[in-house]
Order: sequence, then structure tokens, then C-alpha cells
Amino acid sequence: MKLTGNLLIGSRQVAGTSGTLYAINPATGEQLEPAYHLGSAADVEQACHLAEQAFDIYRATSPAVRANFLETIARNIEAIGDQLIERAMAETGLPRARLEGERARTCGQLRLFAATIQAGEQNMPRIDLRMPERKPLPRADLRQRRIPLGPVAVFGASNFPLAFSVAGGDTASALAAGCPVVVKGHSAHPGTSELVGQVIQLAVGQCGLPEGVFSLVFGAGSDVGAALVAHPFIQAVGFTGSRNGGVALMRIAQQRPQPIPFYGELSALNPVVLLPGALIEKAAELGRQFVGSLTMGAGQFCTNPGLLVAIDSPSLDLFVASAKNALQESAAQTMLTPGIHSAYAKSTAQVASNNNVEVLGIGLDSTAPNSCRAAFFSTNAQAFLSDSNLHEEMFGSASLLIRCRDENEILQVLQKMEGQLTATLHFVNSDLDFARTLLPILERKAGRILANGWPTGVEVCHAMVHGGPWPATTDSRSTSVGTAALERFLRPVCYQDIPDELLPPELQAENPLAIKRLVDGRGI
Amino acid sequence: MKLTGNLLIGSRQVAGTSGTLYAINPATGEQLEPAYHLGSAADVEQACHLAEQAFDIYRATSPAVRANFLETIARNIEAIGDQLIERAMAETGLPRARLEGERARTCGQLRLFAATIQAGEQNMPRIDLRMPERKPLPRADLRQRRIPLGPVAVFGASNFPLAFSVAGGDTASALAAGCPVVVKGHSAHPGTSELVGQVIQLAVGQCGLPEGVFSLVFGAGSDVGAALVAHPFIQAVGFTGSRNGGVALMRIAQQRPQPIPFYGELSALNPVVLLPGALIEKAAELGRQFVGSLTMGAGQFCTNPGLLVAIDSPSLDLFVASAKNALQESAAQTMLTPGIHSAYAKSTAQVASNNNVEVLGIGLDSTAPNSCRAAFFSTNAQAFLSDSNLHEEMFGSASLLIRCRDENEILQVLQKMEGQLTATLHFVNSDLDFARTLLPILERKAGRILANGWPTGVEVCHAMVHGGPWPATTDSRSTSVGTAALERFLRPVCYQDIPDELLPPELQAENPLAIKRLVDGRGI
Repeated sequence: MKLTGNLLIGSRQVAGTSGTLYAINPATGEQLEPAYHLGSAADVEQACHLAEQAFDIYRATSPAVRANFLETIARNIEAIGDQLIERAMAETGLPRARLEGERARTCGQLRLFAATIQAGEQNMPRIDLRMPERKPLPRADLRQRRIPLGPVAVFGASNFPLAFSVAGGDTASALAAGCPVVVKGHSAHPGTSELVGQVIQLAVGQCGLPEGVFSLVFGAGSDVGAALVAHPFIQAVGFTGSRNGGVALMRIAQQRPQPIPFYGELSALNPVVLLPGALIEKAAELGRQFVGSLTMGAGQFCTNPGLLVAIDSPSLDLFVASAKNALQESAAQTMLTPGIHSAYAKSTAQVASNNNVEVLGIGLDSTAPNSCRAAFFSTNAQAFLSDSNLHEEMFGSASLLIRCRDENEILQVLQKMEGQLTATLHFVNSDLDFARTLLPILERKAGRILANGWPTGVEVCHAMVHGGPWPATTDSRSTSVGTAALERFLRPVCYQDIPDELLPPELQAENPLAIKRLVDGRGI
Repeated sequence: MKLTGNLLIGSRQVAGTSGTLYAINPATGEQLEPAYHLGSAADVEQACHLAEQAFDIYRATSPAVRANFLETIARNIEAIGDQLIERAMAETGLPRARLEGERARTCGQLRLFAATIQAGEQNMPRIDLRMPERKPLPRADLRQRRIPLGPVAVFGASNFPLAFSVAGGDTASALAAGCPVVVKGHSAHPGTSELVGQVIQLAVGQCGLPEGVFSLVFGAGSDVGAALVAHPFIQAVGFTGSRNGGVALMRIAQQRPQPIPFYGELSALNPVVLLPGALIEKAAELGRQFVGSLTMGAGQFCTNPGLLVAIDSPSLDLFVASAKNALQESAAQTMLTPGIHSAYAKSTAQVASNNNVEVLGIGLDSTAPNSCRAAFFSTNAQAFLSDSNLHEEMFGSASLLIRCRDENEILQVLQKMEGQLTATLHFVNSDLDFARTLLPILERKAGRILANGWPTGVEVCHAMVHGGPWPATTDSRSTSVGTAALERFLRPVCYQDIPDELLPPELQAENPLAIKRLVDGRGI
């Protein structure tokens, strides 16, 4: 496939006129061809207009048609072959194995959504049957289904160039729900974005869908992004990125004449609590595992373990020594962008210079550009409780251990913490009582709670919650990973006494789609 | 029971210190005893503090315990007996039969939520079983349930002194979901509010629940309301009221350091489209039915039919003549408050004075205070399309007929309309094709679509949607009536590899609550 540097608006390739952008290979600093021609508000307008035109047609398609579309996208992505992996490697500095895994996840995710909407078990229509004889008043026939919200804006994330970018989780769930999608490609990987965008565009044609079902725009800074969120045809937004960027877009979504849902996944520290018994039994092993999770993908995961919490003890010292040893053998890795690298350098330097912080260990250095040297710090609970600087995410392979004097200080630390994507407990049987005490606190702080594991690695399945209370996300009622993600883009509509011939299939008397429905409150 | 004029904060009665308020009998202008002592931000602080203290205990109760609590509230409300009806009549001017019906609905609603959380069919936990042998990586054990958000603020509505006030739909659904509730009672019916509040307070004690599960505050203007929405312990808001008041509170909810969900039900015109065939077959009958719906409860329903849309024809003239006749026999009714009455007078006078509006008919006049004289106006489609003044709600028994030249004008009118709670079609077989064309438009405009009925009368059931796109509500993804209302107050949490002994009952291996669960994507 040929990279053109164009925007993809409906079925067309459009050369933007608002300046150009080149991808940079973060491992070498090299500028990658071609030039990407950036879009303007007029391009956004065109994409949104086509999306709106496509919406009623697309939402009226059967689950089978939408499932086939998602599967076609997956096949088309696979068909790009190595070109996609190589371009993504060049644009992100991520290794081949990681990107191959991410491609598998991306395609698997599309297929899981396809299977899910066809099974129809998760979007149960509700039917309350007519009660003509009821006193004092008869009851009407009432049937509820959920319909898609409308065109959705998706912002590609830097750290998952495939799985949370052009054909990533937000796009897959919005398309599965029946919403056309306008993607703003991330400027760090425009070529990867264009390749995937081209095969989605192809799939739209292959499946005979209206062209506006998908568009891909690029744009500098927040101009195009802000125009997209503000556009009256856009009815919801999926965003994964920085807290500042996400909050700015959220404000736009809230302040529109018609406010719309904004699903932003912003930042998290992902606390890991090491309970005393677990440290006694397996401090050294936990130290090695921790460094494995910390340094995976240069720490550039939303669920990177950025905070450890434990009671001071000889076993904790053993854990620290083990982690320090593992770190010393931990090679520096290329970060995704120069911007992420400099933010990492700045945030770790700030923490390192904090009077209450000790540097416990660091990874191997490198002279290569944009490389991430892992860092492990410690502080004490009182310092953490009183210093909000220590609550800020260091995006990369850096983590802060909070040494507590006792269980009470652990409770204080956890209660003081902001909302998180994940919270993890390491414990053994002797820790069960304290673990039980901690669970209700963690439930209120995080979207996912793990036992004796590490938060990196987010399974795409039905039960996953990749979400959590503010500021982990802007809407704790949702998940951006897993099949429940499609609920973000639906709203209920009730049909009262509508005759069968006008009802959508999922609500018709004969149940032609043969799906489960909640009839008079019972699932049948 | 004795009315005290106090706030109910947890288990205590507290005399507010921020001025006093008397209820006014709108039918007589008479001031009703006792004086209500208004609260301050300090009282809000105290109520929220108790709610937060109660939250973890209350949310850990079983569905059976919460169901018993809801049923106890219903029994206690019934036990107040005629005192409640008489006080509500005096405070609202609503007739006895309406208030007895509303009491039945209020108690029925509490019992329906009780039954719903015990059945557990609507909050299906999700379980993805461990796959230890999966390649390349094993899958962890992943289990998702939804937990309550936290303390909820509820704003009593003026127009449903029982069913959407202290123990109304928002309170019932939040309590059912496991959220403590702090109600701001509506200043138009403080005595009704206190009576119901006292028996909820009683039920909290009878059921052995922590006192903070329920509080009731009164406050002048927006001071207490704004403090409540801004309070950091409050995690969601339920509001039914005016567009201006709702938007002001929504902005506070959005601009908190931690933004929270704001469920506001604001305003609607509830368009009713009369298709040509239906007019030919039953114009006269439709005219009478329309006036019945329009004047019910002095038109003070969120779902009052404020807009009619039809193609000009002799049958439409027959409809108008029939409606006019019915209106001429339609007695003026007391409105809820002097404020609502003067807003009604103002908005109808404004429409009546519009150059493009004709007064088709008016109801009987009355010299009684605050009485609502029904009004029926007409205009043409072009005037409606170009004049946003004609899109504003006239809260009361007033409606505007939009005369269209053809089907195309009907389409334009509907497409131009803002979001609505309901949209209604009257049609017969000969209209089916056009009805089919209209449905996709109406689905995007309204939360509930009715065939051959009238939108007043909102069934409390599983399939109901009392909601809709902005500005009908602030969040189209939800309903404030019906059992789906409790989903507003829940968020998902995923448990990864948590041992059975630490899991909540609904996720345990043995399924001790015997509820349906989505296991590996299949409901079993």
C-alpha cells in the first residue's frame, strides 16, 4: 500500500491545506516520509457532514451486517502484512513482538465486538406487555431498545498505535454500536494511522456501507480536535491521552449548546499494595516481577504500576534489593515521542530532587535518543500525604514506593489517593483480614482490582473494566476496553403501542433475531 | 404526625437558621403553618458527611435488606393516611383523586424497585473464567459487578409532590442502587416533603440502617442547592425542574474539581403528529382526546402535548373545531405555584401576541387565584421554522398547532425540533408509509415514541424511558422513570484473580444469590 499523506474523508483522499507534519523515528530522530498534510475545520465539517448523512443508514443495518464490517476491517488489517508492523516500529520505537501482539489484539477486539453484537446478549431489549384489563387504568404495550447516539469522534492514543488508535477500542465499540466514526489520528504515528485508515475505507466500500461511516483527519495541536468535539453532528467522544489535553476537550464537550458525553481516559498511578505476609513469603520474586511490569513497553501503559505501598520491614528491604538488582540489568528503551521522553525526564527529575524522596534504583543508561532509563523511588507515608507533587503520574518506567509505618498509614495513603484505573493487592492467607479491609476502599478508587498480579496487560473480554473514578477517566460509569465499551454509545428509546410492522426487529412480537429480552422484568 | 418545620439531618430534626418559608395554598393564597426554617451550607455539609459515613455500610447490605427498606418506606407513607393527601392538596392545589393516584404510584414505584433488585435480572454481573492454558498468554479470572456511585443529591420537583419529590423516582432508584440520598425539598410543598421525610427517617431506624442513608434539607433559592451539588461527597444528582435552574446546577456539577453525573430532566414540547388518514377517520374524537391530555393536571406535566403537527385539510379544521368545543367546556384549574402561574400567563401572552400565531380556542376563565386557562394556538410551518420563540415550552395547558402544507414541511418541522421526552404519531393504515418515514427522525429526537395515544401518563415499568436528547434531559443515556433508572447510579468494577472468599456474593463461584450472570459472554 502507498502512503499518501492525505486525510481520508469518506471515500476520498483529501490533501489538507493547514501545514504539514512528518513522523519522527524516536529511535533515530530521523524524519519519515511522506509529509502529512494537515486538515482544517473545513475538513472536519466535511467529515462530520458525511458521518451524519451515513448515520441513519448505518444504524439501520442488522447486527450481522455490522459484524461483517468489523470482521472485514480485521481481515484487511491483517492483509497489510509486515508493512504495517514496520511502519509502526519506525514511528513508535516499539519492538516488533509488541506490535505484532498489538495487531492481534486489535483484530481480536474487532472480532469480539462482531460476535458480541450478533449474540445480542448484552443489549437486552425490554418489553412490558399490554395489560388491557388493569385497574384503574389499562397498561399500554411498552418496548425499549437502545439505539446509537450518532457520529462519534475518536482520538488516537500515542501509546497504542494500533489497539487504541484508528481501528482501536473506541472505534471498534462505536462502529459496533452503530455509530459512524471520525478519527483524529495521533500526530506521532500518521503513517500507521493512514495504513489502517485506508483499509477501513476499503472495508466500508467492500461492505456497501455509506462512505461517511468512517473518516480520518490529521491536525496540528488542538485546532482540528477542538473543532471535532464542538461539531454539532458529533454526539460522543472517545479519548485516551494526557490529563491536560483530555480536560480541555472535555470542557468543550460540556460547553457546547448541546453537551455530549466525553469518554476520556486520562491518567493513573495504579497503586500496588504489598501486604506483610506476601513480602515475608516472596519479597525477592515480587521485586523481579515488579520490575518486569514497570519496564514493559518503557512503562508507557495507562496501567503501569507507578506507586507501591507497603509497611516498612526487613522483607520490604529485600523486595527493594531485588527490584534494584533487576533494574540494574534493565536496558533503556526508546520512548514513543520526544515529547513523552522530555516529560518523563522532567517528572522523574522533579521527584528525584524532592527532599523526602530517595532514589532506590535506576535502570541502565543509553546514549540513544529518547531512551527511557527506569527509575524507582521511595518516600514515606507522611510525605506522600502532605505533598501533592508526589501524586502526579510519571509517564514511563518510574515508580514510587511509599513506606508506611503500619496498616493505618496504608489506609490513609489509599484514602488520600485520586481515582485510578487499577489497584493491586499482593497478599497471602495471613494477610486476608487486612485485604478484606482494603477492598471497599479500593472499589471506590479504581475500575479494576487485582490480586497477586500486575496491572499491565488489559484483557479484552466481557468483564474487563478499563475505567475508573476521576481523574483516571472523565466518566467512571464506563469502560474503554472490553465489550461493555459499546454501551457508551447507546441510549434507550421506548416504543409505546407501536404496531409490530413499524417496530425494529429486536422488539417485534415474533423475536425474529432470536435474542434474549427482558419481558415483564424476566429475562427470556 | 406533627409538622415541625425542621430539616431532617440523619436521625435528627434540625431547625435551620437561614430564614423561614411558608407554604402557600395556591387555590386561596393562604399561608400554611408551620414556618419552615431554612438550611445553610453547614446543614448541607452535615447531611453529606453523614451520607458519606453511611455509604460503605449501606452499599454492603444485601438486595433483600435494601428491598425491605424500600417496602418499609412505602408502608410508612401509606400509614400517614389522609394527612398526607390533605397537606399535599393544600400545598399544590391538586385534586384529591390525582394525589391519591400519585401516592399509589409512589408506593408502587418503591415496591417495583424492591422487587427488581431482589430479582437481580437487570444488573447482570459478568464473569470471564480463567484460561490457564491459553497461548501466548493465559487469561486471568475476571469478574465485573456494578457498585453504587456514592451519596446522591435529589431535587424534589414541584409538579409531582409525591412521585418526583422526597420519596419519588430519583430517591427510590438511588436507594435501590445502594446510594444514600440527600433531598432538597421543593419550597412549594415543604409540609408534604416533611411528612414523607419523617417516615423515611423512621424507616431508616426500623431497618437498622445508618442514619446518613437519608436527609432532607430546605433552602432558599440556589444557595443550599448549589452547595449540595458542589459538595465533594455527592457523587451524582437527580433533578427535575426548569431548564434555567437545571442548567445552572449542571454547570456546577461539571465544574467541580471532580465532575459528577448530573441527571436533569428539563423541558419538552412533546410533539404530536396527526397524519392525514387518522384525521380523516377520527378528527373529532382526536380533538376531544387532545384536550383531555392537554388540560390534565392543568397541563403541568413534563409530557404535556405542547405541540401538534399536521397537514392543513378540512379534517384538520374538524379536529380544531372539536378541540375548540372541548376547550370551551374546560374549567380553569389551580396551578401549583404563583410563580408557575405567572410564567404561564407570560409565555402564553407572548405566543398569543406573535404575528404569526392565531388563537384557536381557550378554556373557561376563573377569578380564583393562580388558575390556568387552557389555550390552543396555531401557526404555520414556515413561521415555526424561523422563530425560535415558538419552540419554547409553555408550562401549563397550552399547545401550538403547526399547520403544514405537505409531508415535506412536517419533516422539516420535526428535524428542526430540539430533543424531547416524547413524540407521538396518530395514524391509520393508509398513513403507514409516512409513519415509517417519520420513525427514524423521532427516534433521534425523543426518549419515548407513542402511537395513537397521548403522552401524559408515564407508566412505571421496566421498558419505560422518561428521558431524551438535550434539552429534554441533560443525559440522554438514562431514564428517570422505570427500573432502568437505577443504572444511573452504578459504575462497573472488575475483580481480577480475587479469591472467592474476598469476592462479593454476586461474583462468587457458587452464585449464592442465584442470579443470572454473563459467563464468557453467555447469560446463564
